Amino acid sequence: MRAVDIILKKRDGGTLTLDEVRFFVAGVTDGTLPDYQASALLMAIVLRGMTAEETARLTDAMVHSGERVDLADIPGVKIDKHSTGGVGDKTSLILAPLAAACGVPVPMMSGRGLGHTGGTLDKLEAIPGFRVDLSLTEMKAALARVGCAMIGQTAQIAPADKKLYALRDVTGTVESIPLISASIMSKKIAEGIDGLVLDVKTGSGAFMKTEADSRRLAESLVSIGNASGVRTEAVISAMDSPLGRAVGNALEVIECLEVLKGGGPSDLIEVSVELTSRMLVLGRAAADRVDAQQRVRGAIASGAGLERFRQIVQHQGGDPHVVDDYRRLPAAPERYLVTAPATGYLTRLDAELVGRASVALGAGRDRVEDAVDPAVGIVVIVKPGDPGDPGDPGDYVQAGDPILELHYRDRARLDRALPLATRSIAVSDARPAPRPLLVGEVH
Amino acid sequence: MRAVDIILKKRDGGTLTLDEVRFFVAGVTDGTLPDYQASALLMAIVLRGMTAEETARLTDAMVHSGERVDLADIPGVKIDKHSTGGVGDKTSLILAPLAAACGVPVPMMSGRGLGHTGGTLDKLEAIPGFRVDLSLTEMKAALARVGCAMIGQTAQIAPADKKLYALRDVTGTVESIPLISASIMSKKIAEGIDGLVLDVKTGSGAFMKTEADSRRLAESLVSIGNASGVRTEAVISAMDSPLGRAVGNALEVIECLEVLKGGGPSDLIEVSVELTSRMLVLGRAAADRVDAQQRVRGAIASGAGLERFRQIVQHQGGDPHVVDDYRRLPAAPERYLVTAPATGYLTRLDAELVGRASVALGAGRDRVEDAVDPAVGIVVIVKPGDPGDPGDPGDYVQAGDPILELHYRDRARLDRALPLATRSIAVSDARPAPRPLLVGEVH
Repeated sequence: MRAVDIILKKRDGGTLTLDEVRFFVAGVTDGTLPDYQASALLMAIVLRGMTAEETARLTDAMVHSGERVDLADIPGVKIDKHSTGGVGDKTSLILAPLAAACGVPVPMMSGRGLGHTGGTLDKLEAIPGFRVDLSLTEMKAALARVGCAMIGQTAQIAPADKKLYALRDVTGTVESIPLISASIMSKKIAEGIDGLVLDVKTGSGAFMKTEADSRRLAESLVSIGNASGVRTEAVISAMDSPLGRAVGNALEVIECLEVLKGGGPSDLIEVSVELTSRMLVLGRAAADRVDAQQRVRGAIASGAGLERFRQIVQHQGGDPHVVDDYRRLPAAPERYLVTAPATGYLTRLDAELVGRASVALGAGRDRVEDAVDPAVGIVVIVKPGDPGDPGDPGDYVQAGDPILELHYRDRARLDRALPLATRSIAVSDARPAPRPLLVGEVH
Repeated sequence: MRAVDIILKKRDGGTLTLDEVRFFVAGVTDGTLPDYQASALLMAIVLRGMTAEETARLTDAMVHSGERVDLADIPGVKIDKHSTGGVGDKTSLILAPLAAACGVPVPMMSGRGLGHTGGTLDKLEAIPGFRVDLSLTEMKAALARVGCAMIGQTAQIAPADKKLYALRDVTGTVESIPLISASIMSKKIAEGIDGLVLDVKTGSGAFMKTEADSRRLAESLVSIGNASGVRTEAVISAMDSPLGRAVGNALEVIECLEVLKGGGPSDLIEVSVELTSRMLVLGRAAADRVDAQQRVRGAIASGAGLERFRQIVQHQGGDPHVVDDYRRLPAAPERYLVTAPATGYLTRLDAELVGRASVALGAGRDRVEDAVDPAVGIVVIVKPGDPGDPGDPGDYVQAGDPILELHYRDRARLDRALPLATRSIAVSDARPAPRPLLVGEVH
């Protein structure tokens, strides 16, 4: 088999066989396929696409580039959740302890933030001492002990993906539903889980800007998961504005704790309860979605979820007292208020721009090697669609009213963040029609 | 400027600016652009195309990756010819001395054979002693003395093309009219010529199989040439069967000498006279095409073309006595006749398969580093469309009649060539409609 023949076949719109896909992935993994051939094939895949069957083959080959973790000795139906990435998208820290508290083991492998979106590992590491680099043995011990482990990708998991992703990033071949699907699902399938709930984001702050693209991605992911024996379903949820009101690592930890204590913003609660409920049904810890939602809300009300969060933190080396004392979390020394430019309805708070402003403050990274400041970030004071209630005008603002509170450390970084934060805001005389948060589902 | 942004732009169907194209070509030339980014961009160009203006920019950037030869101190209008490659396509050895004999200086830079097509340099080197590696100074001296030099590409000519071509060959990015156009025209423009006649081949033995594709390529080439100040026109000529009757280096030299002596096959004469006449008009050595054809035929009849050929050979270190004594050329020791499988009209003699059979015998190369045997090759005894005359049945053959005479040295190579040669032949009861040799023109 010659690499150039595989490239020619895909270039001319052909469908690659299992052997051809395996040849490509094996060559990437062991370095025998030159990068220039891999990138030519990647570009041909971006522009010619892949059938569902081909994408499943690619995923399978990527799973087999490493090892598929065996969690058979952990009792229960193991369920994970994956989000395609958003701004203020912190549900993992809420749903993992809630699902565990309801009896569903959650072996969660997450990533770090890149570009304008945040990453679960960065948020967890805002908790002093928290270790995300557990070995597989430690992860299994955590699962057995507290029913949940929240860790980073181990080197055994789909090593082909790591190499391919690095190449895609510099060759303009990221935006491809087959390549994205294989990248996400190969890692999730290799984790050894029984079921997976996906949160596919849609909107200006999401990777997929349109609902149609988000649905295509969701369908691709669900189809691959189910074909490989992982029961998979997806929620499509809006990502036009940040989710919740906190953007930035320590700020988001606090907001998650507020939700687990029965407070927190309504949109974050809605998405978290929806995702956790689906995990309970998939994990056979609830009879149906109605039953599941009651159990999840019960675990919030009883404090069982909060207690589980404390146990996870303690088990992974973090300071469990952060749960009760937010002053133990890193905090930025300075504040800056970004205000409404006019009087009217706040019609837009662009998630991508808020995310980029937060990265500019130091909360995220433009490049993989950048360091993250856990303390800095942005608190959203007013959101589009805020309903308002007695004494609170909701999303109707006066010129000069504060919209965003920037938590910063470094003046130069604030100067870079401000234009982005300012541009994220739009005010208009007409109140826009309310848009649903949960846009659709695929299963 | 970032390479990945240029890749993304082309991937999404954008048009690259001059600066972007220059950044790409300069990076390829000096090695600062990694091959994996170059190959991703090449694949995006193959699948998204380039506008005529973009292709001209790419050509210009490739010309400027090296030096543009200055031939201003050579008197006269310097004209070259380029063929897109075929089987038995030996017209350069006929038209260069004929045009020079008619007063047009011909600074011809040619290539070697690759794949099923032959190359002018390999044919010239079949003449004992012939040197194709003249320096630019030696080339200018040859032009001044005998009005013609036939040499290989010097290192100064479009070095970006050499690197890009090597990469395209292994990344499935050869088949692209913009990339092919820029590759051909950058080298021709850099030669320092005033005018160029292109022979764009079309048919089963050509790079472009359909007349529509060949016309698109011809239009692209002509447009680039004229835009860069090189007066350029193109003939589109058929390449379904080999041109002439000789395929293989020494065999083709002999056939060229036969044409220059007033003999030779009619199709080869027709294409050679057509191309040379156009060179004379472009080179202002004839008033119009009718005048030019008379002059060219006159140079054959008078022996002036043959004499000029002898001078070129002598000036470039070759044995000029080959002109009169073909035994001084290498000859293969063995012959094998491939015969008609049935009685009927010879409807097909597939040029690509005959070319590949000739390569299998050793006359060409599959890889750049392969050595070439100047002696071996194939003589075509019967061609489709042969008119026949008293005592000659033309293309009507009896089962067992010889069609091809294979000149070989090595039995193992013959065994590889035979299936290709046999498959090149088709015989049928119905005589096919005659097809024109000169299919079209673009100027």
